[in-house]
Amino acid sequence: MTAAPVGLICGGGALPVEAAEAIERDGRPLFLVGLRGSAPAEIERFPHGWVRIGEIGKLFKLLEGAGVRELAIVGAVQRPALKDLGFDLTGLASVPEIRRLMAGGDDQLLRGVVGFLEGKGYAVRGVHEVAPGLTAQAGLLGAHEGTAEDAAGVAAGVAALGALGPFDVGQAAVAIGRRIVAIEAAEGTDMMLRRVARIAEKGRIRRDGRGGVLVKLPKPGQDLRVDLPAIGPRTIALAEAAGLSGVAIAEGHVLIASRAETIALADAAGLFVAGVPA
Amino acid sequence: MTAAPVGLICGGGALPVEAAEAIERDGRPLFLVGLRGSAPAEIERFPHGWVRIGEIGKLFKLLEGAGVRELAIVGAVQRPALKDLGFDLTGLASVPEIRRLMAGGDDQLLRGVVGFLEGKGYAVRGVHEVAPGLTAQAGLLGAHEGTAEDAAGVAAGVAALGALGPFDVGQAAVAIGRRIVAIEAAEGTDMMLRRVARIAEKGRIRRDGRGGVLVKLPKPGQDLRVDLPAIGPRTIALAEAAGLSGVAIAEGHVLIASRAETIALADAAGLFVAGVPA
Repeated sequence: MTAAPVGLICGGGALPVEAAEAIERDGRPLFLVGLRGSAPAEIERFPHGWVRIGEIGKLFKLLEGAGVRELAIVGAVQRPALKDLGFDLTGLASVPEIRRLMAGGDDQLLRGVVGFLEGKGYAVRGVHEVAPGLTAQAGLLGAHEGTAEDAAGVAAGVAALGALGPFDVGQAAVAIGRRIVAIEAAEGTDMMLRRVARIAEKGRIRRDGRGGVLVKLPKPGQDLRVDLPAIGPRTIALAEAAGLSGVAIAEGHVLIASRAETIALADAAGLFVAGVPA
Repeated sequence: MTAAPVGLICGGGALPVEAAEAIERDGRPLFLVGLRGSAPAEIERFPHGWVRIGEIGKLFKLLEGAGVRELAIVGAVQRPALKDLGFDLTGLASVPEIRRLMAGGDDQLLRGVVGFLEGKGYAVRGVHEVAPGLTAQAGLLGAHEGTAEDAAGVAAGVAALGALGPFDVGQAAVAIGRRIVAIEAAEGTDMMLRRVARIAEKGRIRRDGRGGVLVKLPKPGQDLRVDLPAIGPRTIALAEAAGLSGVAIAEGHVLIASRAETIALADAAGLFVAGVPA
């Protein structure tokens, strides 16, 4: 008798394929469902199907056909416009519920999706549970380490993000010295890092040479089974462009996409990458 | 015997002249000190002198010569680069203190400046004390009013900014529905509003038509004698471009520059402007 396959509902980026490879290395069967417009074509290397985000009926049919009982959601999903969801019949029945969910923050939307899947009897896991090797471990992950000032910035960022927890906002912040210079809300980490580069160019940030840290954590109380925060090569490139000296992420709770490339880029740029308790 | 003149240390924008006019209407003598590179030439309509930010010796000489004992700081001052301060001899003696202050947040820098002036025996007032008519009163200030959803957004913004108080960050936030979509840190309110316009264009904000509020407040514990938050015509134009439906500011604690023009612009754009308790 074969074990039931792990289902992966796949958004964009390198993580879906990396998660699939990690599960395959563990010898577990798996089945991928690609979200059209988000997931990469490479998922077709594995047993798979494709759905639009609103095709909930088709999603359940695919999962059932593959014998999936346990699944994880992995990869970036653009918060879609309601009209772009492509609802099928099962989807349409849920529209008022979905519309209500989408009026709130991301957390609320994603908790709703998980609740919906669980309501259908699926066990929803976090990517950090089905593929734990993709998250940051504690301590320094690359060749460089931060200064005492960087440590103070990390502490400031962790505290400020903690304070914002009740508001379903802020997975990331940038601190330079102990001064918080940027807080992420709906714009995402990339746009926040580009902003830091811009205000630094304008001379509105005080620092001697390179300095400052990106801090990225799950929101307090965030359901880690969905939208686990992630960094990757682009994060490092943008942190370097913003003049930062490093990146601190929550150990065990932030994914590193394209890990080898990410760490190599940080090493080449002189940036530290650290897993911190959070 | 004539009353001692009120001193106004003048940064950029319309507020220094508006404050001077308000004080003049009250029949009080006044003396303006313009910060070169920030204050507008129009301050020369009043008794005045000019200094660079670092010319602390010259500043005290001017204030003494005019008989000023009580003063306020008004208008925008770009956080300067240390090398641009133009220190004179008195200034140079304070450099280590100033360098230490500038490593912290804006609050800390400005509290330091006030402490320095007080140490020299000057009574430092807030602009809202010497020219109270320049701040927002409670309630609706223009022709339009917000919806219940706008009210929920204002409450969310006020709460999130309150939570950030201990971190010397965040005088403003944008909420759409009850979702916080942007929080201001070092970038300033204008850049934050431009960001909201950009992420709305990208379809990353959920709303039916126009909606959302800018909330602008003093930071909790902020010394209101310096850097009182302000809105003006550009704030309204940027809020309109971001698709917002209104602006809520702390009654008595947020300045409105070019008030008649600001309210007229909001009226024409269909935006509410409200003074809220904070």
